[in-house]
Amino acid sequence: MTGGPVASVSTEPAAAPDRLAAARGDCPLCGADDHKAVHLVARSRDWRVVRVLDNPDHPAFWRVIWNDHAAEMTDLEPHQRSALMQTVCKVEAVVRRELQPFKVNLASLGNVVPHLHWHVVARWQDDPHFPQPIWGTRQRDGVPAHLMRLEVGLPHVDRAIQAELMSR
Amino acid sequence: MTGGPVASVSTEPAAAPDRLAAARGDCPLCGADDHKAVHLVARSRDWRVVRVLDNPDHPAFWRVIWNDHAAEMTDLEPHQRSALMQTVCKVEAVVRRELQPFKVNLASLGNVVPHLHWHVVARWQDDPHFPQPIWGTRQRDGVPAHLMRLEVGLPHVDRAIQAELMSR
Repeated sequence: MTGGPVASVSTEPAAAPDRLAAARGDCPLCGADDHKAVHLVARSRDWRVVRVLDNPDHPAFWRVIWNDHAAEMTDLEPHQRSALMQTVCKVEAVVRRELQPFKVNLASLGNVVPHLHWHVVARWQDDPHFPQPIWGTRQRDGVPAHLMRLEVGLPHVDRAIQAELMSR
Repeated sequence: MTGGPVASVSTEPAAAPDRLAAARGDCPLCGADDHKAVHLVARSRDWRVVRVLDNPDHPAFWRVIWNDHAAEMTDLEPHQRSALMQTVCKVEAVVRRELQPFKVNLASLGNVVPHLHWHVVARWQDDPHFPQPIWGTRQRDGVPAHLMRLEVGLPHVDRAIQAELMSR
C-alpha cells in the first residue's frame, strides 16, 4: 500500500501540511475531524478510521476516510483502492468478530460530502431501521438495553480495530 | 482473479449446476435472476453484472453480484474480494465516462437479501433523492427529459461495461 506499513497507524489527529495543501477549502473531511462528532480510531498516511458518535440509532458505525481529497473510488490508483478496501474489510472483520451483527452495511455515497469515505455499519434485526438502510425510513425505536450494551463495548472494538490495522 | 480471465465474461444467464448446489434454497440471488426486474450485462464464473430495471427514479443503476452464496465481503477470500471490487470499479469507471454523473454511490447492504451484491448508482443533483441516498426520503420528482435521455443511452453504457469487463 502507498501509506507505508500499516504499522505506521497512529492515533495522532494531525494531518501532514503537504496533504492539506491539496484540500478543497470548504471540505469538512479535508480539515481536522470534528472530534465531538467522531472518535479517531486509527490513522495512516493515506486513510483514517473514525467511529461515528452522532448517530444514537446506530452506535456501531465507523468510517474509513481517504485522507487526500478524492471523490470517487476510481479517482484513486488501483493500488490505493485496494489499500482502502483492505482497510474497510479489516474493520468489517473485527466488527463481525467482536459484535456478531446480523449484517454489515458498507457504503461509499458522498452526495453531501464528496470526499471519499466508506461507512461500515453493524446492523441488527431489532435496530431502528432494519431491514431498511440506516438512511431509510425509521421502523421502530432501538432496544435501550441492546444499545447500552453496545455502547459499553465499543471502546474495546476500537482497540481491536487498531490492533488489526497495526498487524501486517 | 478466481473466475478465470475476465474474457470469459459472457451474457449467458445459466449458472453452473455445481454453483447452485451451494445456494440457499430461498435466496433470490442464488436462483436465476428475475429478467423482468434486471437486465444481465455480463457474467463471469464468479460474478455477474445486471442493470436494475425496476427503479424508475434511478435508471442508471447496476448491481455486481457474487454468484456463490456469501453474505459479507469478509466471507470471501482476499483475492475474491479484490476481484469483486475491481469489477465494481470497472463498472464505476465506465458509468462515469459515459454518463458523467455528479456522483457515484456504491453500497453493499444486503439487509433484505443477504447475498453479497454491490449497488452502483449514478447520481445527479436533480434526481429524485439527491442528496439523500436512493433509499432515503424522496426530495422531488425526476426531470422527465433527463430520465428519458438517460434511458435511451443505457444500452450503450451496458455494452461499454461489457467491453471494459472483457478487456484485461
